[in-house]
Amino acid sequence: MDEFLIKFSGKKSKYKELQEHIKHLIISGALPHHYKLPSIRKLANKLDVNPVTIVNCYKSLEREGYVYTISGGGTYVIADNNLTNLNEDFIDQSSTHNIKYDLASSSPSPLFFPVKTFKNLLNEVLERDGGFAFNYQESEGYLPLRQSLQSLLTEYKIKVSHHYIHVITGGQQGLDVIAKTLLQEGDYVFTEEPCYPGAIATFSSRGAKVIGIPIREKGIDLVILEKELKKYNPKFIYVMPDFQSPTGYLYDLTHRKKLLELANKYSFTIVEDDHFADLNYSQTKLPPLKALDINDNVIYIKSFSKVFMPGLRLALLVAPPLFNEPLQEAKQFSDISTSGFLQRTFDLYLRKGLWNEHVNKVKLIYQRRCQSMLSALERHFPSCVKFSKPQGGLSIWVQLPEILKAKELQKVALKKGISITIGDDFFIQRKENFFRLSFTNLSEKEIEKPIKELASIIKGML
Amino acid sequence: MDEFLIKFSGKKSKYKELQEHIKHLIISGALPHHYKLPSIRKLANKLDVNPVTIVNCYKSLEREGYVYTISGGGTYVIADNNLTNLNEDFIDQSSTHNIKYDLASSSPSPLFFPVKTFKNLLNEVLERDGGFAFNYQESEGYLPLRQSLQSLLTEYKIKVSHHYIHVITGGQQGLDVIAKTLLQEGDYVFTEEPCYPGAIATFSSRGAKVIGIPIREKGIDLVILEKELKKYNPKFIYVMPDFQSPTGYLYDLTHRKKLLELANKYSFTIVEDDHFADLNYSQTKLPPLKALDINDNVIYIKSFSKVFMPGLRLALLVAPPLFNEPLQEAKQFSDISTSGFLQRTFDLYLRKGLWNEHVNKVKLIYQRRCQSMLSALERHFPSCVKFSKPQGGLSIWVQLPEILKAKELQKVALKKGISITIGDDFFIQRKENFFRLSFTNLSEKEIEKPIKELASIIKGML
Ligand SMILES: Cc1ncc(COP(=O)(O)O)c(C=O)c1O
Ligand SMILES: Cc1ncc(COP(=O)(O)O)c(C=O)c1O
Repeated sequence: MDEFLIKFSGKKSKYKELQEHIKHLIISGALPHHYKLPSIRKLANKLDVNPVTIVNCYKSLEREGYVYTISGGGTYVIADNNLTNLNEDFIDQSSTHNIKYDLASSSPSPLFFPVKTFKNLLNEVLERDGGFAFNYQESEGYLPLRQSLQSLLTEYKIKVSHHYIHVITGGQQGLDVIAKTLLQEGDYVFTEEPCYPGAIATFSSRGAKVIGIPIREKGIDLVILEKELKKYNPKFIYVMPDFQSPTGYLYDLTHRKKLLELANKYSFTIVEDDHFADLNYSQTKLPPLKALDINDNVIYIKSFSKVFMPGLRLALLVAPPLFNEPLQEAKQFSDISTSGFLQRTFDLYLRKGLWNEHVNKVKLIYQRRCQSMLSALERHFPSCVKFSKPQGGLSIWVQLPEILKAKELQKVALKKGISITIGDDFFIQRKENFFRLSFTNLSEKEIEKPIKELASIIKGML
Repeated sequence: MDEFLIKFSGKKSKYKELQEHIKHLIISGALPHHYKLPSIRKLANKLDVNPVTIVNCYKSLEREGYVYTISGGGTYVIADNNLTNLNEDFIDQSSTHNIKYDLASSSPSPLFFPVKTFKNLLNEVLERDGGFAFNYQESEGYLPLRQSLQSLLTEYKIKVSHHYIHVITGGQQGLDVIAKTLLQEGDYVFTEEPCYPGAIATFSSRGAKVIGIPIREKGIDLVILEKELKKYNPKFIYVMPDFQSPTGYLYDLTHRKKLLELANKYSFTIVEDDHFADLNYSQTKLPPLKALDINDNVIYIKSFSKVFMPGLRLALLVAPPLFNEPLQEAKQFSDISTSGFLQRTFDLYLRKGLWNEHVNKVKLIYQRRCQSMLSALERHFPSCVKFSKPQGGLSIWVQLPEILKAKELQKVALKKGISITIGDDFFIQRKENFFRLSFTNLSEKEIEKPIKELASIIKGML
């Protein structure tokens, strides 16, 4: 390990100097692929530095993608081809390739945002409130908006005082604030698997251990869930009963009720993430868990990103009394308050009764796009490829035969101007043969062509 | 401990039933003040429940303010008078009292926000970008804004590529994102003392131990700092070189340079929080630490809340290369991205060259208010009361003789329609004889009256 011997110049901190040195060894090829770096203790002794210096150095190298670690088993040089691909992975697909068909992004189409109406309301708020619209707002949210949200929630059968309704800067902030309030290093959290990666990352970054419970067409697998509940004591379980992301599955009433029963029996909190309940293309509308939550076990998040406009960064959180104060404090220390200007405008939007009209409009559009994509999939995809038939939401979840990798498909598709989202990051126990197709950004007529193209790429891979 | 014996009804989770029961015992007076609750293990055995149930129950009682814990020494019933005061502390002062003179809030006065100009720009953005203004924005920020910020920063002698500039949802989010990236349970963080409580709370909530280093008129106490650096290995030190909050002190060049040297010598990161540098009423302008940071040791935050408009929730963060990616990821998992609509509008504001004009305008206003308050203090306050003479920022820091409590002054003042901010929460080692007076919300002429009133209350307390 003599190649690691360096003389510190003292110009930078030691770990940075060492890091530069090792980077150079890797890039120059002096350290072969999968080479095991010396142990922390050994290298610290050899260089006569604090072990913390080595830890920081290795961590930074890992962050930058030069090495990988095997838990409990050391630190290794990454393979060269990964190294050169490194940046490609980070680059926004649409900006580097010429994307003609965006099936990757599951945010709603900006073409259907109510821009004109909203613009009038923005102006109305500024006429009315002047500079006060741009002042700090209360951490829990602008009171009139919280009152409007209280009445909006009754439409979903959630009866709760505005006192327990918090305005947050998007659903993602809800997850962050909940993690801060409920989780400590080493705690367990259950999620559906596959699951929204932003949730997994947030919970993990708090030091929690995330355990995935398989999601089935009618809801989370209750048998496996109860088995795991006997083994672990999770602080909460994170679920999306309405059109789960990424599968689009819908919990039936039995699954909803049973989950609430288990929460009571095993004393855990349920975090219900409602992103899509409004985009329900079926005839049946089931109550959210929060509406059935007589025991105050559910923290409910409703985001306005997918149904309305993500750039507003607005969502609501309903807290059980027990967590009301701590959640509000965590919100306060996250970003003090959500933009009062946007809160005031959204409040006007709700008060003028414009919400339902908008929801009905976009629901119809996306329902048609969904059907159009489903029928294209049926016509063109080989039968060994399975896909969900969602009754709501903005995307379809596709499973390739196990021998195929979604990543390969993605690469080839990209060259033909089609972007898709691969499923790898949605899994805690990594699986590589899933991907997600969103139907938000293509008109009914446009959808067939890229699906046909994807089908022919898949057939070529088989 | 028989009073703790309860029969669980099974209607709620056990810890909640137990919690209700104990609450009742406390409120009814069955448990006296400072009564020590049974240990977790003992009560768990007695009631035949999992110890976790007791832990959760005690934690909730603590959150709700019914009990307090002594680390390693058990859980105690809070004293009765605290119990009844409990809610009072949480209530927003201005909404419950008739505040005529707001000397508490240090946010800028909404009367000087450039509402009309900004409104025109909001409309211009919507004309130009339509629905795309309301879409998700990149986590690191809207590229044109990052470029505008790059050129704005050169005016402060900070030369950095937009690649390292991140748009964040207010300075508070910067602190949160830094805590997430750099801190783990048990890590040490140094701050100035006294210090902005929102920072202390954010760092502590990550499990860090916060150590306060006294702040002097010319900067942080370097002797004590180095002494503590020999004892602890802080992940970072959090400082405000320009008009420190709450003292208003300004680091001289020696303190700036020496701090950077120490960062290099002891390998720690500096977090520089620039809220007030623009509100500099003196002739001398010193470079921010980031401008002198040749070794990439400084993470720099510049908020637009105090100088521009807090309701936009906009700030920038400059990351050293080493932390660039991890900070961006932490931002992404905090709230995905900052409102693209507000970013686009602020970008236009900067591009049209409106920034300096605004800064010069408000600077003049606040400078006059500052002088007016200082001269009123000199005229009316008894000489045993000391106060800072800030050359920038939005408030003055006042020290009462040690026998007096700022809280008492606050209470009496409130009854006369004057609000102040007491200093207690700004200290890590609690001190109770400090308070902060902001001069943002009163005109030069209005300032004398409440100061005279405060002086007479203080004289009455002596
Ligand atoms: C399931 C789910 N939850 C939460 C979020 C966060 O979104 P937002 O913060 O815009 O509400 C997303 C975004 O894609 C999501 O898919
Ligand atoms: C010193 C300091 N830093 C950070 C903040 C956070 O403010 P914002 O998130 O609005 O930038 C404040 C707010 O009062 C502050 O005083």
